[in-house]
Amino acid sequence: MGWNKVAVVGAGMTEFGELFDAGLEQLCAEAFYAAVESVDNGVDLDLVDAAYFGNVMGSLQGNEIPSGATLASAIGLPGIAATRIENGCPTGSDAFRQACLAVAAGVADVVAVVGGEKLRERPTKSSLLESGRMGHPFLSFGGTATTLFAPQVLRHMHEYGTTSEQMAMVAEKNWSHASLNPKAQRHGAVSVTEVLNSPMVCDPFHVLDCCPQSDGAAAVIVCAADRAHEFTDTPIYVAGFGLATDPLYMHEKRLFTGWECTRLAARRAYTMAGIEADQLDLAEVHDCFTGVELLNYEDLGLCAEGMAGKAVEVGDTRIGGRIPVNPSGGLIAKGHPIGATGVAQLVELYEQLREEAGARQVNLQHGYGLQHNVGGYSVGISVVTILGRAYG
Amino acid sequence: MGWNKVAVVGAGMTEFGELFDAGLEQLCAEAFYAAVESVDNGVDLDLVDAAYFGNVMGSLQGNEIPSGATLASAIGLPGIAATRIENGCPTGSDAFRQACLAVAAGVADVVAVVGGEKLRERPTKSSLLESGRMGHPFLSFGGTATTLFAPQVLRHMHEYGTTSEQMAMVAEKNWSHASLNPKAQRHGAVSVTEVLNSPMVCDPFHVLDCCPQSDGAAAVIVCAADRAHEFTDTPIYVAGFGLATDPLYMHEKRLFTGWECTRLAARRAYTMAGIEADQLDLAEVHDCFTGVELLNYEDLGLCAEGMAGKAVEVGDTRIGGRIPVNPSGGLIAKGHPIGATGVAQLVELYEQLREEAGARQVNLQHGYGLQHNVGGYSVGISVVTILGRAYG
Repeated sequence: MGWNKVAVVGAGMTEFGELFDAGLEQLCAEAFYAAVESVDNGVDLDLVDAAYFGNVMGSLQGNEIPSGATLASAIGLPGIAATRIENGCPTGSDAFRQACLAVAAGVADVVAVVGGEKLRERPTKSSLLESGRMGHPFLSFGGTATTLFAPQVLRHMHEYGTTSEQMAMVAEKNWSHASLNPKAQRHGAVSVTEVLNSPMVCDPFHVLDCCPQSDGAAAVIVCAADRAHEFTDTPIYVAGFGLATDPLYMHEKRLFTGWECTRLAARRAYTMAGIEADQLDLAEVHDCFTGVELLNYEDLGLCAEGMAGKAVEVGDTRIGGRIPVNPSGGLIAKGHPIGATGVAQLVELYEQLREEAGARQVNLQHGYGLQHNVGGYSVGISVVTILGRAYG
Repeated sequence: MGWNKVAVVGAGMTEFGELFDAGLEQLCAEAFYAAVESVDNGVDLDLVDAAYFGNVMGSLQGNEIPSGATLASAIGLPGIAATRIENGCPTGSDAFRQACLAVAAGVADVVAVVGGEKLRERPTKSSLLESGRMGHPFLSFGGTATTLFAPQVLRHMHEYGTTSEQMAMVAEKNWSHASLNPKAQRHGAVSVTEVLNSPMVCDPFHVLDCCPQSDGAAAVIVCAADRAHEFTDTPIYVAGFGLATDPLYMHEKRLFTGWECTRLAARRAYTMAGIEADQLDLAEVHDCFTGVELLNYEDLGLCAEGMAGKAVEVGDTRIGGRIPVNPSGGLIAKGHPIGATGVAQLVELYEQLREEAGARQVNLQHGYGLQHNVGGYSVGISVVTILGRAYG
């Protein structure tokens, strides 16, 4: 079932964390060559004729001028057609989507998708805070990630009785998953009480409700589905995807207990894949804040409207539960190097659907996994991708 | 001949210039609706299911956070799949290329491509100069556009005897063309002597060898070639395109009298289109500096190696000449609002190939036109697009 014109045949990533000893280009190269080396039958680098580069940092803080050429040179393939995508938090997943379009259009054969970001070593003088002080049109009025995501989560608490304890359970779950993922930024465990007792950043988000800032890169290799078996006996197919936008400004939005762009993107992806949410074996969703993961459950159809708090409470979304969410540890515990995040979610789906996820392997029944990002200014853009084992 | 899977059915742009009374979103909307209104048989906005947004400013100066959602909202179509491309100076033309891929992949039906930029009203405290002062890794060491492009032009002068007078002739020609273009930023005329007597910015570029900084936006509407006739009796087809990258750092480059990425991109585009350079009726090329236009002639195959100076001297590239280059006025005189530039070149090709370019109409013989950008840090990325009247 599904679109299935493009296959993923390799996937790799760097450790996520505070990687002060590696630059952006170095991280991108490391992720790319990890993906290349993961290709079961190997892939001749001469076959790679295009690349898509997901990177946000240049836009947000203005101290880099990365382009497709930055990536092409970093991976040792100057000459290839390389495009940089910058589309808010879904940057990495949109880069993947554009790569799929290039392959499906017949214009590229084997394409590398690399997302990379360095968030942890910005000098103070060019930081987001400094941008605010200098009169940034949004940031200087407090338009940061917490304040952009908080209103919908607060409204969800008001409408459906979702609690801070249920949000803290998301953190507890995702840290627990990350403890099984050697690439994750955060290892160890946090308890619900620790989350609730951590300092409040922006109501309802305590500091442990928030994902960390991260450095890291992730990569996948895609090709036309009908030649995937040259590279591996177990390709994973692109069953469907969707990208959607919301009205940009808060006063124009119509939904306040979730994000319409995610609902639209999910509908497009499910339709393209020819499946419904109950056929998913796992989902990697955009848990930049714990409460956001809960709203995502409903936007993506993983549980009924208003039931997200209950879903995490009863363990539905834990590995071994009805629909494991963020088995990788998610943004909360694996980390969130923005341009890399969506690609890393696809790396997790690839390994899970090939039953190579080790200690955090989820149970496969239908053979489909979903990846999701939502973000951009005013949380106005979302990408959903569905990968599947099935073909035809 | 050629790819011809996608057609352009509408094109429009704002005036380029110092547009202090219009914001980025307003300019994008104006260009988009100009393109929509240009569609001969009209186009129902409900059919527009995707958009590509070319915008660089956010990256270069960090004071905007534009995404696809910015464009979707600006043109009144929140909900559609909208992606922001940022790929150096070829940003607009790469956005167009991605739109073509989406249509050819069968994932989008009618797609808007909008490039827009506001370069003229940055507050001093967030300017490029200020970024340099703050320790920008490139800009603080003088890594600006003039110093990135000058070395190859100087080498061309050394190798082939290209002169400052010949470069000044490019400015004279492009100002002369722009005087016929009501949308151009610069009207009037400059003489070769005026260019040569204008202040030196960075050897060999005098200030009148440089394009201005510009505000503006441009848009085109594309759809699958086989449904183009719903919208117009005179669609213009996408015959071919190519994107290529160079080694990022100067010490890794192999060509110093031009840019290898342009040569590679051009070869890909000509091959895809199934034509050679002598079948072009016009070209819109990336004349950010006069000398760069000359080197582009050779990189694009419009004249023999080393003969570019002579080509402009004998009038080959003037309207009415052997191969008119930049009949719109080019970046030098029409203006260079970065994300809009490539799209505006496509607007010019669309109008010229439909014989609607008024006083600056070129003579059509083969029915093909070429568009070209080159840029990004270290001049490492190039896009070439070929549009044609022919189909099949």
